[in-house]
Amino acid sequence: MYMAKVVGSVVATQKDDSLIGRKLMIVQPIDSDRKPIRTEEVAADTVGAGVGELVLLVRGAGARKTQREGVRNKDVVDSAIVGIIDRFDK
Amino acid sequence: MYMAKVVGSVVATQKDDSLIGRKLMIVQPIDSDRKPIRTEEVAADTVGAGVGELVLLVRGAGARKTQREGVRNKDVVDSAIVGIIDRFDK
Amino acid sequence: MYMAKVVGSVVATQKDDSLIGRKLMIVQPIDSDRKPIRTEEVAADTVGAGVGELVLLVRGAGARKTQREGVRNKDVVDSAIVGIIDRFDK
Amino acid sequence: MYMAKVVGSVVATQKDDSLIGRKLMIVQPIDSDRKPIRTEEVAADTVGAGVGELVLLVRGAGARKTQREGVRNKDVVDSAIVGIIDRFDK
Amino acid sequence: MYMAKVVGSVVATQKDDSLIGRKLMIVQPIDSDRKPIRTEEVAADTVGAGVGELVLLVRGAGARKTQREGVRNKDVVDSAIVGIIDRFDK
Repeated sequence: MYMAKVVGSVVATQKDDSLIGRKLMIVQPIDSDRKPIRTEEVAADTVGAGVGELVLLVRGAGARKTQREGVRNKDVVDSAIVGIIDRFDK
Repeated sequence: MYMAKVVGSVVATQKDDSLIGRKLMIVQPIDSDRKPIRTEEVAADTVGAGVGELVLLVRGAGARKTQREGVRNKDVVDSAIVGIIDRFDK
Repeated sequence: MYMAKVVGSVVATQKDDSLIGRKLMIVQPIDSDRKPIRTEEVAADTVGAGVGELVLLVRGAGARKTQREGVRNKDVVDSAIVGIIDRFDK
Repeated sequence: MYMAKVVGSVVATQKDDSLIGRKLMIVQPIDSDRKPIRTEEVAADTVGAGVGELVLLVRGAGARKTQREGVRNKDVVDSAIVGIIDRFDK
Repeated sequence: MYMAKVVGSVVATQKDDSLIGRKLMIVQPIDSDRKPIRTEEVAADTVGAGVGELVLLVRGAGARKTQREGVRNKDVVDSAIVGIIDRFDK
């Protein structure tokens, strides 16, 4: 899993059916000192995250496990926001 | 998921059967300031994207979920264009 | 698999159901000279690892294999701590 | 998918059964200007590619989809050559 | 697949059951000029590789295909040594 900051969203009218109605957020991976690392990605929000919030990302098949079995089988998503970070304990 | 710009296409006559009839586009990953990041890849188009358009990419098994169940089981594709970006909201 | 050092933990109240009750540790990948490599990640602890310990990480579907079959099917985790390193033999 | 140039092959007598009889090619990923990018990998050839040819690579489960169902279930391959590139259209 | 040199092993008493009895080797990825590339990883040995040997690595689900079906379903391994390299032909 990865820590990231939500920096915006992507609007795409022409897209795969499985993306219809999904909030596609632009996320900037960060470390626990909140410094940006690697490069921006897009993740499907599943917990109501907003711009500016620090979030937890998963990639790959895990990103589709948030959906019901049937829907999951046609879901193209490969990155999802699965938590909103309250704080880092270090 | 990743943001990218379509910069061309690849022509390959000798290829896996599952690639026959598929548009194989050269894509340059970008960030939301449209700056190039990482390196070029090839993605199977599934939404009618053209050269110069900004698109949404998925990688891994998600890239095969755009196909019907039977076809998917023999599909070698590991990267697909699944949306055409209208705009970034930041 | 990857070697890493546990540097802290993440607290997130709003999260996917499958993350409830899981210890989400901030990990810094290292090499066998204990030097930091790449960038921080978050991994679900499955062996009782504490801050400062050197651990073994797995990514992808392997990270979900620590769970029972039913639970695994709804588990979003894509990175898990699966061992506490005693020593490196070189 | 990735563009690459075949630069040689690997000979390994002691190996997993599923690799017996497979051509294991050393490939250097390239961009569409034929410049080398990232680092060398090894891919199982499935289309008769030779040294010096430009090829299309897939990674992960897609690399095993070139095999029949039964064989695929014991196949350790995670990278395969699935096309020989004729040209780049840009 | 990746080329690598075995540089040591990891000892971990507290670990996932599926790692018990497995040789966990520290591997340094290399290119075909034997130069180190990227960073060290840990891979489960499946072909009797020793320190100093050049080996072939696979990552992801392919690394679990070396195990019998039942065992594989609980196997957390995401990287395995599946061949000992005799030579590079270039």
